[in-house]
Amino acid sequence: MFQSFDEKTIPGTAKDRIFLLRKEMLKNNVDAFLIPRNDTHMGEYVSERDKRLEWLTSFTGSAGYCLVFKDKAFLFVDGRYTIQAANQCDENIFRICKIPDDTLINCINDHLNEHEVLSYDPWLHTIDQIEIIKSKKRDVIKLVEVDNFIDLIWNNQPSAPLDLMVPHILKYSGQEHNEKLKIIAKNLSKKGHSAVVLTQPDSIAWALNTRGTDLIQTPVALCFATISASGKANLFIDQNKVDNKLIKHLGSNINICDIKYFGEFLNAMTGIVRIDSQRAPIAIKSILEKEKVSFVYDSDPVLMLRACKNITELEGSLKAHIRDGAAFVEFLSEVQNKNSNITMDEIGFVKHLELKRRATGKLKNISFDTICGSGPNGAIVHYRVNTKTNRQISYGDIVLIDSGGQYLDGTTDITRTIAIGTVPEEAIKASTLVLKGMIAISSLKFPLGLSGRDIDAIARQALWSEGLDFDHGTGHGVGSFLSVHEGPQAISRQNNIALRPGMIISNEPGYYKKNSFGIRIENLIYVKESTKGKIPDKRRMLEFETLTLAPIDHNMIKLSLLTEYEKKWLNNYHSNVYKKLSPILTKTAKSWLKIACKSI
Amino acid sequence: MFQSFDEKTIPGTAKDRIFLLRKEMLKNNVDAFLIPRNDTHMGEYVSERDKRLEWLTSFTGSAGYCLVFKDKAFLFVDGRYTIQAANQCDENIFRICKIPDDTLINCINDHLNEHEVLSYDPWLHTIDQIEIIKSKKRDVIKLVEVDNFIDLIWNNQPSAPLDLMVPHILKYSGQEHNEKLKIIAKNLSKKGHSAVVLTQPDSIAWALNTRGTDLIQTPVALCFATISASGKANLFIDQNKVDNKLIKHLGSNINICDIKYFGEFLNAMTGIVRIDSQRAPIAIKSILEKEKVSFVYDSDPVLMLRACKNITELEGSLKAHIRDGAAFVEFLSEVQNKNSNITMDEIGFVKHLELKRRATGKLKNISFDTICGSGPNGAIVHYRVNTKTNRQISYGDIVLIDSGGQYLDGTTDITRTIAIGTVPEEAIKASTLVLKGMIAISSLKFPLGLSGRDIDAIARQALWSEGLDFDHGTGHGVGSFLSVHEGPQAISRQNNIALRPGMIISNEPGYYKKNSFGIRIENLIYVKESTKGKIPDKRRMLEFETLTLAPIDHNMIKLSLLTEYEKKWLNNYHSNVYKKLSPILTKTAKSWLKIACKSI
Repeated sequence: MFQSFDEKTIPGTAKDRIFLLRKEMLKNNVDAFLIPRNDTHMGEYVSERDKRLEWLTSFTGSAGYCLVFKDKAFLFVDGRYTIQAANQCDENIFRICKIPDDTLINCINDHLNEHEVLSYDPWLHTIDQIEIIKSKKRDVIKLVEVDNFIDLIWNNQPSAPLDLMVPHILKYSGQEHNEKLKIIAKNLSKKGHSAVVLTQPDSIAWALNTRGTDLIQTPVALCFATISASGKANLFIDQNKVDNKLIKHLGSNINICDIKYFGEFLNAMTGIVRIDSQRAPIAIKSILEKEKVSFVYDSDPVLMLRACKNITELEGSLKAHIRDGAAFVEFLSEVQNKNSNITMDEIGFVKHLELKRRATGKLKNISFDTICGSGPNGAIVHYRVNTKTNRQISYGDIVLIDSGGQYLDGTTDITRTIAIGTVPEEAIKASTLVLKGMIAISSLKFPLGLSGRDIDAIARQALWSEGLDFDHGTGHGVGSFLSVHEGPQAISRQNNIALRPGMIISNEPGYYKKNSFGIRIENLIYVKESTKGKIPDKRRMLEFETLTLAPIDHNMIKLSLLTEYEKKWLNNYHSNVYKKLSPILTKTAKSWLKIACKSI
Repeated sequence: MFQSFDEKTIPGTAKDRIFLLRKEMLKNNVDAFLIPRNDTHMGEYVSERDKRLEWLTSFTGSAGYCLVFKDKAFLFVDGRYTIQAANQCDENIFRICKIPDDTLINCINDHLNEHEVLSYDPWLHTIDQIEIIKSKKRDVIKLVEVDNFIDLIWNNQPSAPLDLMVPHILKYSGQEHNEKLKIIAKNLSKKGHSAVVLTQPDSIAWALNTRGTDLIQTPVALCFATISASGKANLFIDQNKVDNKLIKHLGSNINICDIKYFGEFLNAMTGIVRIDSQRAPIAIKSILEKEKVSFVYDSDPVLMLRACKNITELEGSLKAHIRDGAAFVEFLSEVQNKNSNITMDEIGFVKHLELKRRATGKLKNISFDTICGSGPNGAIVHYRVNTKTNRQISYGDIVLIDSGGQYLDGTTDITRTIAIGTVPEEAIKASTLVLKGMIAISSLKFPLGLSGRDIDAIARQALWSEGLDFDHGTGHGVGSFLSVHEGPQAISRQNNIALRPGMIISNEPGYYKKNSFGIRIENLIYVKESTKGKIPDKRRMLEFETLTLAPIDHNMIKLSLLTEYEKKWLNNYHSNVYKKLSPILTKTAKSWLKIACKSI
């Protein structure tokens, strides 16, 4: 199994560990030390070695940070994780603070005296993160870069992953990496930048057409790189991750250097170096400054290139979605068959779904730990089942399953909410409102230039009309055999990035009734130009095309709430699901799907 | 008549006037001089005396500025006004620049050499406007505050308006001004501010419950004021505008000073003075800085108070809308009666509508020059008919009429688009899509905390679905017997102010087919708490209540495009219009309205 169901957290360890940390702080005359969840690459997923926050606090969530003082400690997490953090951590040691209501700055104001020292590992914080503290506290406290104290005290810290970096071939990438380098170089030249420092492994993976297995569910190799305005690149990577196949693939434009020379190389850079202050660790800025290398802040030039998928990537994604959809339907057909031998609990569902995906023979990994929440567990947006929380699934339950796969040709992410037997009318009504929002986004046409923020309301209008809403974004960007949460686009009130053709994005409105049930319906969609013939005013309009293929449970739909248009949309969608998936399904699954996709 | 139809612009005068200006610039060693459209109060409307930009350039639009160099001159206007500016100005003298594509900074970069002098009247530019230039050019050019050169060379410049400031009584304001001062004072105390400087006449009018007639269509008196954290105020106003009635109304908490002492008073302020850098002229900052008075930037504290109308203001607005709606219906019923004696041209329509409003006996003024665009003129969003553009209205024409009145109990703003006889199917379809957007906003429920930007898409979704859109915001705030364009709220992609109960806002989607026709349907609506009983999750939801009462032309609706819900909305609306207006209509208008409001 890719997914594990062990409860990972051991709050009892915190006392000894924070004692060791404070000893280290004292030795170094440090009054406060900041420990983030992220690694130096600032991504959502980190390797075992980089789970410093978890090691210290027992908190396993995907975002947060801890500020440790000599006699107190504060764990900052967002609204998704406040309950989880309280459950996982020893609250005698860590006070749980809620972002954004509680802020790091206020915490510093309240607990750090004038001239006291706040320290941090400069490789684990972005330039922007530290600069905001500096801008407010520079004249009051001392900010000091230090070696990571956790690494000094963590006995048996896992070693850094050293898996091979592997080529991602043209068949899947659709564009030679030398072509990509040329485009990036042109962008740099145009802006007068001599080179850019890339710190995000998925940016480097995209630019060099490589992948890896350093992070469990995001297929990248951890590394740094620079690309110059002449189109040459330097890849900084542990030599153990490099083999001849990779050297041959990268070719003469890319110079492979051991990662230990990265700092030295930065020292010697010339011209105006571009760094992304939102994403690059401040250590890079410190090195450049020390050696008086000129630099400017500008966004990672790969971001928008990576976000707008080319034809090959989009076609690959469709193939991946047919394969993944078929696996999902095999799973669904057995779950809803009373004679199947699936264990009827959440872990049983997760295992069975993973088996079906593995059975495709193409699954590289799941794209994230499957969320399978039945009954009240469905209402916990970021629920991950473990042996303790595992819940028997019985007649009358609503089950929310959010899962995805990593395939060479594409990354998938799908949520369906299914009824096991007859479920309450209230849930069916809510589910129908969610579906109306999902269809509204799927059907939307909108002018070029609009961002996710501008259209987020469209997904919520039906829920709002009944006084309901959901407390997460409507959708996130998705990579092409890369991160399942990929920026910069998103459908969210926080996102100001204009949507562009080729962007893959999720469309996943939901509704969560605490202690009762959760609903989410998620399809991946991609942005495309809207049909030209329909546009009398010659405005450039965009629309979405749906990638995900799996039936939406009829038992969760109150037909009288749907408009004629929505019924037509659903029938068309189901007809397409059946057409695309039925040829590769087992006989039983095919019969099941035929009924699941019947016209309403 | 309140409205004049003369063509105001005389491009031939520019040559002599700019010659005089350049002589003045030379005399003062100034290389570039900046002339804005606004007066010192930064509002949308200015008195005749302050129409400096128009005097110099002949451009009569409501926004823009001119940068005059020794040998060239650039007039900056936004997209609404590029065509108008080209028509009104001598392009041999003024190059028309389009905001935001063309920027002042680029123009300075291109045409001003190092160490050259850019001058401006510090009373006519906000702090933010000048600071942005300083931040980019401080080390390159010299920025020098000067007396206004236009005032020095403008022969026969009209004198400043000196109309009386009058009390706005409790019956209409709903709250004593001393109560308002207490609330403002509390806000100041809480933030540690000793006083605030108010520079917007409508903020002062709201806070002191006064009105005036200095600006034609916005009922305010031009003045400045300060309010202290103890709840006392100083009003700086020309003594000619003050009579005993006003002195009695203002009472002992408000000290009336002649406006000529305003600068001296600023000099002597103590504590931390609050100024709104987006709205206050930079002259105020210069004075405070010179005398080392401490100050902070923070928004005008009246803005949000003024925006959220109290019960009295909302009830007043409804009364004004019944009165105004009845006048509008009298107009409509005659326009569509073949035996009426209305002159069937745009000016005839405008005059007749104004007469109907005057006939209410309560009209203080129109709230802006009526936009009455028939046929292709309807497609010009900011069209104002004059004797040259006036167009005969014939059978088959579509006429867009956007107008409003100023009444003591409220400000109105309504747009209807009517068919004279049979009009093209294309226009009826577009009009129906516009109506769908208008109904969608009218019916929307949404969570507290959302701004106009978050819901703007709802008004456009139906148009977008056919590849159509409109290039203006969906709605603007409206004052209570104050400015018809009142901030800070708006339904627009540019607006981030959370909507709050009591805010009055327009709901006016449109569609414009260049050289052919224009459609706009506008109701004023206000924000209120949504019905509690309907909210199972205890989320605070908001919704809109419609104020405007006038029929929407059935001849402009393609019924098959409306959903059942939309038809029901329209029938309910029309039934309410008939119920509210019919008791005060003439017999003919009442019969006409009965048909116009019949169920569909």
